[in-house]
Amino acid sequence: MQLGMIGLGRMGANMVRRLMRAGHQCVVYDVNPANIAALVAEGAIGATDMGDLLSKLNGPRAVWMMLPAAITGRIAREIAAQMAPGDILIDGGNSNYRDAVDLATELAPKGVAYVDVGTSGGVWGLERGYSLMIGGSTEPVKTLDPILASLAPGADGSGGTSGTTDTAVQGYLHCGPAGAGHFVKMVHNGIEYGIMAAYAEGLNILKAADAGKEKRDADAETAPLHNPEYYRFDIDLAAVTEVWRHGSVIGSWLLDLTAQVLKDDATLSRFGGKVSDSGEGRWTLQAAIETGVPAPVLSSALFNRFASRDNDEFANKLLSAMRYSFGGHQEK
Amino acid sequence: MQLGMIGLGRMGANMVRRLMRAGHQCVVYDVNPANIAALVAEGAIGATDMGDLLSKLNGPRAVWMMLPAAITGRIAREIAAQMAPGDILIDGGNSNYRDAVDLATELAPKGVAYVDVGTSGGVWGLERGYSLMIGGSTEPVKTLDPILASLAPGADGSGGTSGTTDTAVQGYLHCGPAGAGHFVKMVHNGIEYGIMAAYAEGLNILKAADAGKEKRDADAETAPLHNPEYYRFDIDLAAVTEVWRHGSVIGSWLLDLTAQVLKDDATLSRFGGKVSDSGEGRWTLQAAIETGVPAPVLSSALFNRFASRDNDEFANKLLSAMRYSFGGHQEK
Amino acid sequence: MQLGMIGLGRMGANMVRRLMRAGHQCVVYDVNPANIAALVAEGAIGATDMGDLLSKLNGPRAVWMMLPAAITGRIAREIAAQMAPGDILIDGGNSNYRDAVDLATELAPKGVAYVDVGTSGGVWGLERGYSLMIGGSTEPVKTLDPILASLAPGADGSGGTSGTTDTAVQGYLHCGPAGAGHFVKMVHNGIEYGIMAAYAEGLNILKAADAGKEKRDADAETAPLHNPEYYRFDIDLAAVTEVWRHGSVIGSWLLDLTAQVLKDDATLSRFGGKVSDSGEGRWTLQAAIETGVPAPVLSSALFNRFASRDNDEFANKLLSAMRYSFGGHQEK
Amino acid sequence: MQLGMIGLGRMGANMVRRLMRAGHQCVVYDVNPANIAALVAEGAIGATDMGDLLSKLNGPRAVWMMLPAAITGRIAREIAAQMAPGDILIDGGNSNYRDAVDLATELAPKGVAYVDVGTSGGVWGLERGYSLMIGGSTEPVKTLDPILASLAPGADGSGGTSGTTDTAVQGYLHCGPAGAGHFVKMVHNGIEYGIMAAYAEGLNILKAADAGKEKRDADAETAPLHNPEYYRFDIDLAAVTEVWRHGSVIGSWLLDLTAQVLKDDATLSRFGGKVSDSGEGRWTLQAAIETGVPAPVLSSALFNRFASRDNDEFANKLLSAMRYSFGGHQEK
Repeated sequence: MQLGMIGLGRMGANMVRRLMRAGHQCVVYDVNPANIAALVAEGAIGATDMGDLLSKLNGPRAVWMMLPAAITGRIAREIAAQMAPGDILIDGGNSNYRDAVDLATELAPKGVAYVDVGTSGGVWGLERGYSLMIGGSTEPVKTLDPILASLAPGADGSGGTSGTTDTAVQGYLHCGPAGAGHFVKMVHNGIEYGIMAAYAEGLNILKAADAGKEKRDADAETAPLHNPEYYRFDIDLAAVTEVWRHGSVIGSWLLDLTAQVLKDDATLSRFGGKVSDSGEGRWTLQAAIETGVPAPVLSSALFNRFASRDNDEFANKLLSAMRYSFGGHQEK
Repeated sequence: MQLGMIGLGRMGANMVRRLMRAGHQCVVYDVNPANIAALVAEGAIGATDMGDLLSKLNGPRAVWMMLPAAITGRIAREIAAQMAPGDILIDGGNSNYRDAVDLATELAPKGVAYVDVGTSGGVWGLERGYSLMIGGSTEPVKTLDPILASLAPGADGSGGTSGTTDTAVQGYLHCGPAGAGHFVKMVHNGIEYGIMAAYAEGLNILKAADAGKEKRDADAETAPLHNPEYYRFDIDLAAVTEVWRHGSVIGSWLLDLTAQVLKDDATLSRFGGKVSDSGEGRWTLQAAIETGVPAPVLSSALFNRFASRDNDEFANKLLSAMRYSFGGHQEK
Repeated sequence: MQLGMIGLGRMGANMVRRLMRAGHQCVVYDVNPANIAALVAEGAIGATDMGDLLSKLNGPRAVWMMLPAAITGRIAREIAAQMAPGDILIDGGNSNYRDAVDLATELAPKGVAYVDVGTSGGVWGLERGYSLMIGGSTEPVKTLDPILASLAPGADGSGGTSGTTDTAVQGYLHCGPAGAGHFVKMVHNGIEYGIMAAYAEGLNILKAADAGKEKRDADAETAPLHNPEYYRFDIDLAAVTEVWRHGSVIGSWLLDLTAQVLKDDATLSRFGGKVSDSGEGRWTLQAAIETGVPAPVLSSALFNRFASRDNDEFANKLLSAMRYSFGGHQEK
Repeated sequence: MQLGMIGLGRMGANMVRRLMRAGHQCVVYDVNPANIAALVAEGAIGATDMGDLLSKLNGPRAVWMMLPAAITGRIAREIAAQMAPGDILIDGGNSNYRDAVDLATELAPKGVAYVDVGTSGGVWGLERGYSLMIGGSTEPVKTLDPILASLAPGADGSGGTSGTTDTAVQGYLHCGPAGAGHFVKMVHNGIEYGIMAAYAEGLNILKAADAGKEKRDADAETAPLHNPEYYRFDIDLAAVTEVWRHGSVIGSWLLDLTAQVLKDDATLSRFGGKVSDSGEGRWTLQAAIETGVPAPVLSSALFNRFASRDNDEFANKLLSAMRYSFGGHQEK
């Protein structure tokens, strides 16, 4: 079928490629003309603006946005203003699910269906397929089925057998009304933060397994290491992550990637350690807090990212200031 | 080759089976005679006690212990007392790696080699193979290679391709001197706790996505839910975990199991929610703390298990008592 | 001066008493007539409804609401609808500061000033005075100064000397425009949760100092205690909290209360350990998350309260289910 | 009475001064002769080494060590070797309580009593008195009573009235056998970390209350701030901490110090934010972990200190590497 795609970054462009490989026709637009040209060269139909894009689709038209969360709402309203009853507007980005709840309600009187699709798979989705979590009304989601089925890995993908008879085994799932798709994707990313942090903390502990080899200061500002004899290991992190991939309880796709990363560059010298977050982890916690669900692991993972960007600096200065104030402790 | 196995519980018995399938000869012992008989019926050689077991092995002899951590040290010393120079004693259980460091040093003058093998794979290891993290001197570990290779999944196992040329791609790794194997396995389990908690917290948030449907009290002891309209989803957790298995960033073996668990029993009615811990998570944190490595996610996961067993009860009573004392707040 | 008080619960009633003792005239209303009658007997002027209350005040009129957060917004709008330009409406409760930002904007065109006052002091405020954090426009806050000064402890209160020349040393502070008072009070309560949890966790550890005296199971589901000889103390928690009150770094008003609580009832038998939260801790974290500030301690304290009310139950069942699934572990 | 003091740093020197003011005679030693000379000038008796110090005391002799934890054990054994039956050796520093358990057992056959005294009060103890938590046998602790009573604040100190009839109201407490004093002090410091972090996190959130005033990037690596209108406050942290000192629930001695710190230097420009820890927080968590007591707040506080010293760097690089690997995300 036909699909309009707005936003041709890493994710959007590859999704267009995967759809075209499956025989779908894509009309594409991006603020950067080079991104459009690249896909046109691969068979997509380019559009000069959103109106042009809409005019090149046959109704009922489906337009998929793959944009940064900060601008999705504005662009959605611009496109919807040019849409007709029966058209479908899809947000496949990492927007707050609340926006989908609001926009679906806002666009309903116009007859424009709003569908939110949480899209996981990253730069590997082109080959592996994308895991899709879908929110929206039944009919438009059904209309989009050929697109969704092509974007998803399919039953022979990364998953293997399962008893479920619905589309989940193929990697896409209609999770509920508008907002449900982004809600599930939001929590998915919250979990992702937690899993990533679990590996990162554990590997950092393994890296410190040689702590007993170095000499420590013996002053009041330094905690002594009582048993240095138990910390004299030089652990090969690349080899360890590799062995864990084979038969261990913590095997995962993230571990596969981590093993490769460490094999390529054991010291991770090209990274500085300022870890971004794109919002989904925050909203996951907001949902946990509002519904009274404890989420200490997911919150620790998020807060650690904040701290990696030095947002804890003032708090830490305060701690040093208090220590100086009550105990005369000088920072080392 | 030959191997003696002491401890024929879930793990030990299946490891014997996997070894016998690969053509190894196993002499087995357990405090429970029925456990011995079961394996003898499958081709193992039974022993009446540890001395008998040793007498049925040809030197240099290798004895593998698969026992609860609390008794491993005592049994190890009992066996070692009956061993001869060149013999190898292996602890494949979840012991503290410090015990391996100590025991290797203690047994070295006798010429008995102590090898610690962290063994991951659970009840699935019989079919999938076990991921093995090995600590000890080079020579005895080399001697054990046929056993280790048979227990591990092998290169065609769960892993797939990789550029590493060593045994890690087959699922077993000599991590360093005595203690290194259990150290790596310890951290492995610490990570496991974190990953499990990440999924559990996230799914618990998804379960609460319908919080806006219920009515809340409007009193000073109840936090209001400002936007109930954003919490009106009924999420099918079994379907969601299934869809995540296909192409998402958080795909993992634990997720595979979780999806199956939820498909079988969506309410998990057979579980009470008192989560045990077997020690490895504790020692992981001890190592983090002693080496000054932050591990907020792994610690949150561990403490949550403690709290699941109501070990937070007195602390919580104190909080309620303080609230009553300063604010007259009554528990609801 | 005159003040109308709406909401005569624990906080509101005592504030009226403290104001009357300072010579102010209070017109009071509550949904429960008995609460009105009690204060009328002590010299307050009773009102039959909000209109009656307003009619009994001389303009410009000031009305203070001391209500549960869940209903404050609705009541505020009802009262404001009956107010005239120059009147002042005050929210002294634990409302979300966002409501104050919104209501101040909403009421501005009517000429009604909205002032938010975070009020700390609990049931002890009547005698000690209340610590007041005030948000709103300069003029109405200035108008309210006699009321605020009387509610606050005053410079001879709990504080002692300080170099600040403003009202902070007397226990009240104009923190900024509308919302600033409740924002500061919100964070105050977030900190309060953290401090309370720090004491509670620490005392719970002291309580467990006898763990080495009991016998442990030696099975695969129980982490062994390696050095029981280090856990054979019987700590008198009431005496310890008392000694900490005298010269230690962790002396505080909450510790004073805790020492008294433990002296009265060392086992806290009258409390069940289901710890409520009234919203402020949640909003503190929401602010931390939205502004990217790490708050792991404050979030741990909040999530622990959620867990105390068993909101972690499903997550814990999942953990047990996963453990059973990969390792055959049975819950103990 | 007489007391020998070894270690004349910030704590030791002031304790000698406080004891001399109360009429006790102190024989003092330190590796730095200038520290000895300073106290001799104030009336103490200087010693040239530990033997000399012991020779200048009348039996039964009491020697108090105030040394960094890392060297206390070694020095204790050196002194004890020169002691006679009936002598008392006291460790007033921040040593691991396990050392006290071990040393008391080790020295018992010699007839030398080992007493561990947790000492809180910091640089303010000279004037305020020290809160003392004491472990050891009954008789030597009784012998030391005049010293302990003089070091403690006394009933007219910082505390106020209380019903307890024992010495706790004077600020010193015999907590149990050897080790109990340091155990209680250890947990005291663990709590201290938690309280400090609660204030620091809360104040950091208040500092970020102006986040809505700055412009944010709108890209996929930056979480959007949905409601900047709610983050436009400029909070005066010095004034806020001052107002909290007067009548609020979170009043404390640490808050008193914090208010002063912020009044002196609102930006804390002289501190870098690398927060040391001296071991007690670590051991508190070790005790929590070994006894199965959840301590998420205390652990978060400790781990945050580790992270402030960049011990999270490798973990953070791993997170960035994973993000790049699955999503092509570049660090900002």
